[in-house]
Amino acid sequence: MNIFLLTAHPEPRSLNGSLSRFIIDRLQAQGHDVQVSDLYAMKWKASLDRDDFQPDDALDAEGLFNASTASGRALQHGTQPGDIAAEQAKLQWADAVIVLFPLWWYSMPAVMKGWFDRVYAYGFAYGVGEHSDHRWGERFGEGLLAGKRAMLVVTTGGWASHYGPRGVNGPIDDLLFPMHHGMLYYPGMSVLPPYVVHRTGKVDAQKYAQIENELGQRLDTLWTTQPIAYRPQNGGDYEIPSLVLRDHIAPGQIGFSAHVSKVTETDIAKP
Amino acid sequence: MNIFLLTAHPEPRSLNGSLSRFIIDRLQAQGHDVQVSDLYAMKWKASLDRDDFQPDDALDAEGLFNASTASGRALQHGTQPGDIAAEQAKLQWADAVIVLFPLWWYSMPAVMKGWFDRVYAYGFAYGVGEHSDHRWGERFGEGLLAGKRAMLVVTTGGWASHYGPRGVNGPIDDLLFPMHHGMLYYPGMSVLPPYVVHRTGKVDAQKYAQIENELGQRLDTLWTTQPIAYRPQNGGDYEIPSLVLRDHIAPGQIGFSAHVSKVTETDIAKP
Repeated sequence: MNIFLLTAHPEPRSLNGSLSRFIIDRLQAQGHDVQVSDLYAMKWKASLDRDDFQPDDALDAEGLFNASTASGRALQHGTQPGDIAAEQAKLQWADAVIVLFPLWWYSMPAVMKGWFDRVYAYGFAYGVGEHSDHRWGERFGEGLLAGKRAMLVVTTGGWASHYGPRGVNGPIDDLLFPMHHGMLYYPGMSVLPPYVVHRTGKVDAQKYAQIENELGQRLDTLWTTQPIAYRPQNGGDYEIPSLVLRDHIAPGQIGFSAHVSKVTETDIAKP
Repeated sequence: MNIFLLTAHPEPRSLNGSLSRFIIDRLQAQGHDVQVSDLYAMKWKASLDRDDFQPDDALDAEGLFNASTASGRALQHGTQPGDIAAEQAKLQWADAVIVLFPLWWYSMPAVMKGWFDRVYAYGFAYGVGEHSDHRWGERFGEGLLAGKRAMLVVTTGGWASHYGPRGVNGPIDDLLFPMHHGMLYYPGMSVLPPYVVHRTGKVDAQKYAQIENELGQRLDTLWTTQPIAYRPQNGGDYEIPSLVLRDHIAPGQIGFSAHVSKVTETDIAKP
C-alpha cells in the first residue's frame, strides 16, 4: 500500500525524528511504499497569502484577495505553486496518511497548520460537490480523499493524567477533535484512533522500546483498526442546511462526542 | 488603558481588515492607547526553529536543538530575536489583548499560531514558577500575564447553527477552548467570552452595522465583562502533580466544561 508521512519537528535527532525513521522503516519492511514530507527540512512556506497565486487567480471581481476564490481558480487553471500541487499529489497517491507532530500549545506546530491552510485548496479539500438547500457539499465522510485512512501520532511533554477525562488540559480526544474531525474526516478520510506519547522529557531506552512496540503494532494494524465512527454529514443524521443533529440522533447529547456514533462491543475489531 | 490588538488576515480590505480598523478607532476614541501587530503586514516568521537563536543558546548539552531550552536561555541572556522581544513587550505593556482572526480549519491561521509558538518563550509564557511535587508551575490563572484581560474576535464562513451545541462542526466554545484556556488563560490572562461573526460571505451593509454595534458594546465593556470562570490550577481544585480535578469538584463531569466553575446568576455582571 502507499503511505504518506507528514511530519514537523525542528530537530531531526529528537524523539519525533526517531519516530519518523521508525515509521518509515517499519512500513517499508512490510513492503509498503512510503513518501515523506518533513516540513522543517523542506522549509515549508507556512502562510497562505497572495504570493501563492498568479495575479489573474489571486484577485476577485472587486480586486480583493480571497483565499477560497484564489485557491479554487489556481486549482482549476493548473496554476498552483509547485509545492502545493506536489503535496496534493502525495495525498491522492496515498492509501493512508500518518501525521506526526509534537503538541505545541494544544495544537500542531505552525508550519504544519500552514501545510493544511495551503494544501487544502478550495475544490480539493473543501468546496467539493453540490451546495444547495439539500446538500452542503461533499465533506465529513465524503470528498476527494474518501477511502483513505489517516492517523495522528502526537507527542506531549505533559503527563497522560493531565490529558485525561478530568485533567487540567482537557481530554486529548477533545483537543484533537478539530484535527481529527475538522481536518482529516472533513475531506473524507477515515480517522483511526491516535497514538499519543506523553511525558516526552522522561523517555529513556526502556520507555522508547515500549513506544516502538506499541506504535509498531498500530502500524501493523493500519488496515484493520476500526476508524472513529464519525457520523457522515449527508447520511441522514443531520438536518440540512442547519447541519444540526436530528432530535432522535444521540438525543440530548451535546459537544464533540455527539458526532461519534455509538459502536457496540461486538462491532469493535479485536486488537 | 493599554490595548494590544493581534490580527492575521491576508487581505486588508476584508471583513477582518474592517473589524481591525473599527476596533482601533473605537478604543482610541475612548482614550485608550492601542498597539497593533498585523501579522500578514509584518510578514511574521511563522516557524519556531534554531534560526531564532544564537548558536550558544540554540543547542543543549548533547548538541540538540530543544525549543524550550533554547527559548529559555535566549530570554535569560537577552539574546532573543528582536521580533520576538518586541511582541513580548507589547504583551507586558497591555492591560488587555484582543486577538482577531478568521477561523481556518477550526483554528487560527498558521502565521498566528507561529506568533504564539515563537513569542511564548520558556520562562515567559510557560516554565514559570516552581515545578515540584507540590507545584506545577505558575500557569492556568497565574503567570507573567496575570491581571490582563484577553478576548478573541473570530470570523467563520459557516452558520451559527453549524457551531451550535449539536452542530456538525462542534460547539464554537469547545473549538476555542484550546486557545482560550490553553493559550490565553495558561500564562495568566483572564479570558472574556469571544465575539464571533458567522456566515462572513453574507455580511451586507445592514449586517455589518449590526456587527459594529455588537462588537462596539463588547469593547465598551472590556473592563466590566465577567471573564470565563476557568479554575486556577493552584487554587485547590486539582490534585498535584496529576492535575486531575478533585473528586468533589464538578463530580462526575468530564471534558472542557468541567474546567469552568459554576457561576450563579447573581455573580454575573449586568451588561
